[in-house]
Amino acid sequence: MDDDRWLTDQQLHAWKQLAAVVELLPGALETQLKRDSDLSHFEYFTLAMLSEAPEHTLRMTALAARTNATLARLSHVVSRLAQRGLVQRVPCPTDRRATNAVLTAEGRRTVVAAAPGHVSLVKDLVIGPLSDSDIADLDRITARILKRLDPAGHLATGIDAR
Amino acid sequence: MDDDRWLTDQQLHAWKQLAAVVELLPGALETQLKRDSDLSHFEYFTLAMLSEAPEHTLRMTALAARTNATLARLSHVVSRLAQRGLVQRVPCPTDRRATNAVLTAEGRRTVVAAAPGHVSLVKDLVIGPLSDSDIADLDRITARILKRLDPAGHLATGIDAR
Repeated sequence: MDDDRWLTDQQLHAWKQLAAVVELLPGALETQLKRDSDLSHFEYFTLAMLSEAPEHTLRMTALAARTNATLARLSHVVSRLAQRGLVQRVPCPTDRRATNAVLTAEGRRTVVAAAPGHVSLVKDLVIGPLSDSDIADLDRITARILKRLDPAGHLATGIDAR
Repeated sequence: MDDDRWLTDQQLHAWKQLAAVVELLPGALETQLKRDSDLSHFEYFTLAMLSEAPEHTLRMTALAARTNATLARLSHVVSRLAQRGLVQRVPCPTDRRATNAVLTAEGRRTVVAAAPGHVSLVKDLVIGPLSDSDIADLDRITARILKRLDPAGHLATGIDAR
């Protein structure tokens, strides 16, 4: 095997630690949201993306791209959120073939109520242990990785909307 | 709501990018391993942990901790790997109540054959776009996060075994 296929000790160590973060973080976020707000992390993220959108509305295709879901998976989740009265599905007024997802007032209340506990956990687990310069380094490093992992920038709209 | 519950713009931007990496990376790794080696990422990781262990053997409880799995989930996966002849389950010689998982010669061949494609993707997506100083920064940052996310260091044995 070609030696340069392999990683240096330092690269391997950093990679294994990143892989451990990737393995552990979703479960920690999911546990808190399920327990405190009866939402999966994906449901929370879907509601949050809608709450940040103009008029709390996004086309299903745009919402799927922003949440990294297939349209089939997103449709399933939006149906469940609609049953709980948190989201409505309405025909797009400017394109009859398209469907929009709209956050309801109850959906807005739900995401506003869920946010503090979620943000508090993000601070405890991720932001708290990092200095300001660590945050700047993390921002630079994740941007470089995302250029490879998401070259079309599907998730970037959600990121830049601050 | 208390203002200091919320994140600064820079913290939020870095967090959203990290969350996007956490969302996208597992699918990318899984797709390559499934396609090229007919292994889920979890199966690959399980085989890799055994291949790094002394005598290619670990107690099921230790393997579960290292792969961040419940014993029930790991048992299920080990059964499937055993059906494919990649792993054997044997009683622990020093503790009759415990079971060991042992990598077979075929399991070893499978993980050795799968590794180059997996490592190559890790290099493309994660290591390639980073400079040496980015790697050092990533190593420091992920270590700080893991102290919170995995305070008991369950995944650390796998990380330190280089």
